[in-house]
Amino acid sequence: MDALAHIDAYWRAANYLSVGQIYLLDNPLLEEPLRPEHIKPRLLGHWGTTPGLNFCFAHLNRIIRERGQDMIYIAGPGHGGPAAVAHAWLEGSYTHRYPDVGQDAEGMRRLFRQFSFPGGIPSHVAPEVPGSIHEGGELGYSLAHAYGAAFDNPGLAVACVIGDGEAETGPLAAGWHSNKFLDRGRDGAVLPILHLNGYKIANPTVLARIPEEELVKLIEGYGYRPHIVSGDDPAVMHGLMAETLDTVFDEIAEFRDGRAERLPMIVLRTPKGWTGPREVDGLPVEGTWRAHQVPLSEVRQNAEHRAMLEEWMRSYRPEELFDAQGRPVAEILRTVPEGPRRMSANPHANGGELLKPLVLPDFRDHAVEVKSPAAQPSEPTKVLGRLLRDVIAANPENFRLMGPDETASNRLSAVFEATDRAWDAEILPTDENLGPGGRVMEVLSEHLCQGWLEGYLLTGRHGLFNCYEAFIHIVDAMFNQHAKWLESSHKITWRRPVASLNYLLSSHVWRQDHNGFSHQDPGFIDVVMNKKASVVRIYLPPDANTLLSVADHCLRSRDYVNLVVAGKQPVLDLFPMEEAIAHCTRGLGILEWASTDAGVEPDVVLACAGDVPTLETLAAAALLREHLPELRVRVVNVVDLMRLQPPSEHPHGMSDAEFDTLFTADRPIIFNFHGYPWSIHRLTYRRHGHHNIHVRGYKEEGTTTTPFDMVMLNDIDRFHLVMDVIDRVPGLAARAAHLRQHMSDERLRARAHTREYGEDPAEIRDWSWPY
Amino acid sequence: MDALAHIDAYWRAANYLSVGQIYLLDNPLLEEPLRPEHIKPRLLGHWGTTPGLNFCFAHLNRIIRERGQDMIYIAGPGHGGPAAVAHAWLEGSYTHRYPDVGQDAEGMRRLFRQFSFPGGIPSHVAPEVPGSIHEGGELGYSLAHAYGAAFDNPGLAVACVIGDGEAETGPLAAGWHSNKFLDRGRDGAVLPILHLNGYKIANPTVLARIPEEELVKLIEGYGYRPHIVSGDDPAVMHGLMAETLDTVFDEIAEFRDGRAERLPMIVLRTPKGWTGPREVDGLPVEGTWRAHQVPLSEVRQNAEHRAMLEEWMRSYRPEELFDAQGRPVAEILRTVPEGPRRMSANPHANGGELLKPLVLPDFRDHAVEVKSPAAQPSEPTKVLGRLLRDVIAANPENFRLMGPDETASNRLSAVFEATDRAWDAEILPTDENLGPGGRVMEVLSEHLCQGWLEGYLLTGRHGLFNCYEAFIHIVDAMFNQHAKWLESSHKITWRRPVASLNYLLSSHVWRQDHNGFSHQDPGFIDVVMNKKASVVRIYLPPDANTLLSVADHCLRSRDYVNLVVAGKQPVLDLFPMEEAIAHCTRGLGILEWASTDAGVEPDVVLACAGDVPTLETLAAAALLREHLPELRVRVVNVVDLMRLQPPSEHPHGMSDAEFDTLFTADRPIIFNFHGYPWSIHRLTYRRHGHHNIHVRGYKEEGTTTTPFDMVMLNDIDRFHLVMDVIDRVPGLAARAAHLRQHMSDERLRARAHTREYGEDPAEIRDWSWPY
Repeated sequence: MDALAHIDAYWRAANYLSVGQIYLLDNPLLEEPLRPEHIKPRLLGHWGTTPGLNFCFAHLNRIIRERGQDMIYIAGPGHGGPAAVAHAWLEGSYTHRYPDVGQDAEGMRRLFRQFSFPGGIPSHVAPEVPGSIHEGGELGYSLAHAYGAAFDNPGLAVACVIGDGEAETGPLAAGWHSNKFLDRGRDGAVLPILHLNGYKIANPTVLARIPEEELVKLIEGYGYRPHIVSGDDPAVMHGLMAETLDTVFDEIAEFRDGRAERLPMIVLRTPKGWTGPREVDGLPVEGTWRAHQVPLSEVRQNAEHRAMLEEWMRSYRPEELFDAQGRPVAEILRTVPEGPRRMSANPHANGGELLKPLVLPDFRDHAVEVKSPAAQPSEPTKVLGRLLRDVIAANPENFRLMGPDETASNRLSAVFEATDRAWDAEILPTDENLGPGGRVMEVLSEHLCQGWLEGYLLTGRHGLFNCYEAFIHIVDAMFNQHAKWLESSHKITWRRPVASLNYLLSSHVWRQDHNGFSHQDPGFIDVVMNKKASVVRIYLPPDANTLLSVADHCLRSRDYVNLVVAGKQPVLDLFPMEEAIAHCTRGLGILEWASTDAGVEPDVVLACAGDVPTLETLAAAALLREHLPELRVRVVNVVDLMRLQPPSEHPHGMSDAEFDTLFTADRPIIFNFHGYPWSIHRLTYRRHGHHNIHVRGYKEEGTTTTPFDMVMLNDIDRFHLVMDVIDRVPGLAARAAHLRQHMSDERLRARAHTREYGEDPAEIRDWSWPY
Repeated sequence: MDALAHIDAYWRAANYLSVGQIYLLDNPLLEEPLRPEHIKPRLLGHWGTTPGLNFCFAHLNRIIRERGQDMIYIAGPGHGGPAAVAHAWLEGSYTHRYPDVGQDAEGMRRLFRQFSFPGGIPSHVAPEVPGSIHEGGELGYSLAHAYGAAFDNPGLAVACVIGDGEAETGPLAAGWHSNKFLDRGRDGAVLPILHLNGYKIANPTVLARIPEEELVKLIEGYGYRPHIVSGDDPAVMHGLMAETLDTVFDEIAEFRDGRAERLPMIVLRTPKGWTGPREVDGLPVEGTWRAHQVPLSEVRQNAEHRAMLEEWMRSYRPEELFDAQGRPVAEILRTVPEGPRRMSANPHANGGELLKPLVLPDFRDHAVEVKSPAAQPSEPTKVLGRLLRDVIAANPENFRLMGPDETASNRLSAVFEATDRAWDAEILPTDENLGPGGRVMEVLSEHLCQGWLEGYLLTGRHGLFNCYEAFIHIVDAMFNQHAKWLESSHKITWRRPVASLNYLLSSHVWRQDHNGFSHQDPGFIDVVMNKKASVVRIYLPPDANTLLSVADHCLRSRDYVNLVVAGKQPVLDLFPMEEAIAHCTRGLGILEWASTDAGVEPDVVLACAGDVPTLETLAAAALLREHLPELRVRVVNVVDLMRLQPPSEHPHGMSDAEFDTLFTADRPIIFNFHGYPWSIHRLTYRRHGHHNIHVRGYKEEGTTTTPFDMVMLNDIDRFHLVMDVIDRVPGLAARAAHLRQHMSDERLRARAHTREYGEDPAEIRDWSWPY
């Protein structure tokens, strides 16, 4: 069949270009015999997976052309970077994005040279590669990314190659079940291609070594219709793959219009390093783990290896693939889809090109009324839930809310007035808020929540991930990879900005008194702070209105990771809406109504960040006002944590002059912080007043107990803060010794009450503070 | 059947005790009608999963008694804490561990009151519970823990209840395939019991809502023989479960002696909150998500709810279960196994009781010879591999080496001279170092590596987890949970110390130049530092001999998490063995041969931690010696990072006096650090000389490039360090302006060379330094 011959030519071209990238500095068309100086001094790259990736890509292009299918390609074995680059070059989109790498011999030379070369491009599929939304670094997330891309894209097919190494990871194993959350009407299709080439780095893979019967059951158990394409003879395999893809896309069509219950998938079994050297130095290479990276490792030094490389490259018959100018021949270009149908140029893979801003209702409409500060409580996330409900209603196909079954627990239930939880498995009469079109996605896998959201955002949509604070650490590594993706993307001019990844961490450390020690961990803040300042933002709104303002800001932002930590339990309302906006815009500020310094230099600064620390700080300020009315106390609340850094370190950082104005350069500062105390030191160590800062925070003390006992266990409670003030304001220790003892007694009294009655004393529960 | 009646009585007793823990302060035997003051003011706990956990436990006890089976119990739905506590109390082991909680009415009152009560015990299964090795906080790790416990315990069966919520997580989904690494001869058996009660928190679960046929295929695809026990009529279910367990343990015996290929597992389908209130306030509860936590929430205030609670508790017929003194009746005690066969008293679940110290060969035997420091290179992990080989040989059933297929990549291959990789799936003739008894466990899932190792350690064995540095973040959350387990265990006198969890992070940030940006992340250090000082230790040995010394120390230690970061690439040997030991014992020290301060006050201190930063620091010191011979430079290397903290913060912390002696209180300190620079500030912000410390480290700059380009991108290179010295030593700027320019030129030259030739300049690659 002529079409298959053209596919084979395309495949050989892609393989040739892949090998060239790994090995060659020059002589790209092999116009002369290979000499040492044509070879890179350091050989970096992964050949093993590459021919399989090329094979899939070549065959999918036929489907795109014949069926007009909109499709993107996710390379789970993303270390096969040469494959993705080769396709983009063959399709012309590489030259479009990087005009200095032309689609000719000189362009090919540059393409080869730059790969894995200093000043060039990474060895893995990375943001630099046109057509990719999936970094080829850490393994496990391809399938979740694929489903995230498919959600709300009914015309799209997402082909997702899954390496059999990656298939051993937890996130990937969980990802198969994403099909229970995919709606045939509303969403696109995902085509998983499980590529069994038998080995990970130095080991066989589990799925390649279980009986095929067991593998088929596993896949059927995951809810897919498996199709197996297995072999090593290219001629036979081309026919098999083409036939299978025709079947598979028929089945996808059947699924979409309701004639089939299950989506298909493909098991592709080919040798690792297929079409590469069979044997090197007497050891088998093709089909073994030795093909994982660079099959011929001594090409520059070893003439025999060099001859083998040349023979290998010539085995693809480059003279049939490229014309004298190094351009791909017409037979190859004919297999390439057109314009945005090329997978390397599909706008879904550069989501910013498709990004529609959210239609955002006025968050002020959801403001809680605050006649006087700290007079009544609200539940911040409950208030936010109403805004999110309206966001969902106004953006029916452009926004999703992810969470590991904690949306209700995090008190965002108002969203269910506007939508359901996405659910395409069985629904029982007693179920509530479940439905195939739901905008809320709940699965007990933080990995899937994160992966789906990343895929959704990178294809140009918007979302928010709500999670228990302690368990967001489950996706630390995924956050790192996404932040790195954004960091890299910032340097790539053709990558258009995408919506920020928004985290709402509720059920936070201070309100996990009921779940105990295992649920108490505010350390994600530190993980986020380790990434580039150009990418990360951290907000700790202390009440409902500031949370609304912060949320609105985050939903409008682009290309960041926004971390918002806000409680679901009642906290006092501090700011009327307009003041909340001003406070959030400044990022921090003096709470004048809680301060007694009358605008002059205070004796002590009580700083706070986080809702519960702010409550305790305000209570401490009230105690000081009552008991030491002559003491000039300034209360400073910090919403935008990055304001504490110097401007040289973070774009939100404030100047030393501003810092000194707010915090003073020489007065004691008692800083009550939501997270680990050293995080504040890390942010402020360069400030003039740093040696005066005493930070209270979570110091890894906790168990199942009461809310106030939790703050006491970590010394961030009001009484201890007063004691800290007495200890640190010069001259106060003697004068206020009695008060200090009284505070200490109050702590003991509260603890005894708690131990006796199992709940906090009424006066602490009832918010009865003198404001 | 009489036995089943007794099991039912035991089950009812466990359910009664579970409900009592959630609700009651007093009146444990319902000797009078429930009054408000008998009820806890805050109702905390999870009922939904509890009756199922009790059901399994009750039935497994029969197997233990009848077959003399050694067994432990892992409660994946560990938030069902009341169940585990109830069993320990019924079996008498609770009273054994906590004599104030007697096995009588007063003891029962205390048992109830303390649960989820301030000053009492956590609401989840926690270290406080006898018989547990599995914290019931974060979900996903039960099956990995179970397999870890079973490895090298041929007589043991590990019953592992998996909640259907947990089953949605990635780590659990990956965990099923652990059976490919379990050897029938050498290891024990794992019995997974997938408990489908239909709901997670507020949502149905995936596995409960897929067709049963699909579920069966999934499980068979995972390589198990499924047995389904489904229903809600206790009488029927007792018979079914007993029959199934007999079959299952016959099948386990068949598997063990080779007559069966696959291990069995059980699917238990029962209503959520089974035997609890059917309906509350007109809404269905039993069998729905409303049964997840506390089915009756207003018991203190609402007389109707209180009456329902009483009716519910009386439905278990407590008068048949406990005698007048509150002791379990003989029929119940008869179902309980004896002594260490009780799952709540099995020593495997208090692994320290079984801990055998490792037989440790003398690490000095593996020392590399160092005639003069910094004269020749070694590959530290390669040297360590030889020690680990001998550790494995000397401890054939007591030590395992885990890694995500990176043991060879991390250059620990010497271990394969003594053992194989564990592998119980198909083996091909071309495979190397694969075998069923292997001590090296490689699966491309950091979650499984970590989970297996935790289970192995907590049952009293030893091990080490080697991993790429960037990807260890995948298990941040698991590390947190394990560290918290150890933190809590330290306070529990009957928990005997277990072997430390040892991480070896190789392929670290500075040597991932070839894999690129996604592989560069030294932030695990920060995650570890957030945990209690009593639990964590961090070591950065700069050469092969210090790595040997550190490894020996870690393998001997107990109850810690030891984080060791050491490269696999060649670094210069700095310390002869005896000096290496002394240096590691001190934790840090002056490298006199590299210093030019002649023991008097230096002009500048060059501090370093980590192998690559140390190399660059030494090279900088050499440059300074050459170009500014009169400058008094002191080089300080830090191996034990926690030495930098004040002694009040960490037991390894050094005094201010010691710090000042080493680092001075007033001279510039250029600190070249392996990780993020602010980590050093966080450790030292209280030190006198802190304002003089200038830290260089990884600042999130990287791509695929050369090793030296990586250090230049982050300004930790030798040339930049010299520039830093010139900038910071008073008076040097003018005098050394020419040198500064020269250094800057050298950087440009190195970069240009790299960009031109694709490798670092020879003089940098060849270690040609003047020592």
